[in-house]
Amino acid sequence: MRIVIIGSTGTIGRAVVDALSGNHDIVRVGNRGGDFQVDISSTESIKMLYRNVGSFDALVCAAGQARFGALAKLADEDFSLGLNHKLMGQINLVRLGLEHINDNGSFTLTSGLLAREPMPGSAAISPVNAGLNGFARAAALEMPRGIRINVVSPIWVKETMEKLGMDTAGGMSAEDTARAYVESVEGSRNAEVLDVRDFA
Amino acid sequence: MRIVIIGSTGTIGRAVVDALSGNHDIVRVGNRGGDFQVDISSTESIKMLYRNVGSFDALVCAAGQARFGALAKLADEDFSLGLNHKLMGQINLVRLGLEHINDNGSFTLTSGLLAREPMPGSAAISPVNAGLNGFARAAALEMPRGIRINVVSPIWVKETMEKLGMDTAGGMSAEDTARAYVESVEGSRNAEVLDVRDFA
Repeated sequence: MRIVIIGSTGTIGRAVVDALSGNHDIVRVGNRGGDFQVDISSTESIKMLYRNVGSFDALVCAAGQARFGALAKLADEDFSLGLNHKLMGQINLVRLGLEHINDNGSFTLTSGLLAREPMPGSAAISPVNAGLNGFARAAALEMPRGIRINVVSPIWVKETMEKLGMDTAGGMSAEDTARAYVESVEGSRNAEVLDVRDFA
Repeated sequence: MRIVIIGSTGTIGRAVVDALSGNHDIVRVGNRGGDFQVDISSTESIKMLYRNVGSFDALVCAAGQARFGALAKLADEDFSLGLNHKLMGQINLVRLGLEHINDNGSFTLTSGLLAREPMPGSAAISPVNAGLNGFARAAALEMPRGIRINVVSPIWVKETMEKLGMDTAGGMSAEDTARAYVESVEGSRNAEVLDVRDFA
């Protein structure tokens, strides 16, 4: 399969590339690095990406910005970042990718644990992650030509926790996190939210 | 209690006013009718509403626009309407209302069944409704002064189905729908998504 991986230079994205590159042709996309660049908050940038990439069999998005912060301190811009980048960015990758993806292809997006298991500080992220889960379940009902769509819901990634100086005890390595993405791409699941804890 | 009801002239809102007005002081808010007017997609309009209303004990929002339509035909504006009006409009009612709501007050927002039970045509609504459920669960963790927050998730309202010429068999009357709102306002629930089918 020809697989486009958005966020291929990120912590999860690199692990997904590693897990899939042995068996597939990988198109690496980053916001600065990779074979192609994209700003997923811009529909023009996404359209240009697809024009340059051409047809493909699977798209994985492991990119998407959203802001963590105390509810009383979050600014309008903190909410709009998550909605425009992580939520609509990924929704638009699907909407605009539909005319480029091959029959029986698949989209795999990334939400996160905070959708269903919030914590103080996640008031601008939880709606974004929950929204992605809601979108994928709804959009799956209308996918043409045998195309599938799933969302992977990661927990904290150990490598990210290390960078932030956090205790990594409750986290999962990027390599283990990548297993849910491989399952979504290579398996037959559709309209599912894949909790990474079920595949590690 | 002094209860502010946004969307008080709508089908659900009127039923919520009827159910609560016997025991409480109701402030009716509409986009055109009611005691006060607000455009929830505008933070300036919300700020002016709160300046005019003053302090209150509970806020119920039964307003929020989002667009139904085939995924292949939904425009950017169809997604942004739901995100700016129904999702961020209700989130901003909470964010900006926090400085006006009394101790131990409550916020009750409205999402909908399509959050978890999508149908073809709900790709722009399901993320909004799911996002609202995610926001309330997260925001509840940071509410100060004993303030509660819940979301009511209605199914199709019979009166609305009648207007649209639909078979009302699977729907629920506005009066029955209002029971979940009363439970959220008068009870002690917090951080919950109240499925109207559990209270009718």
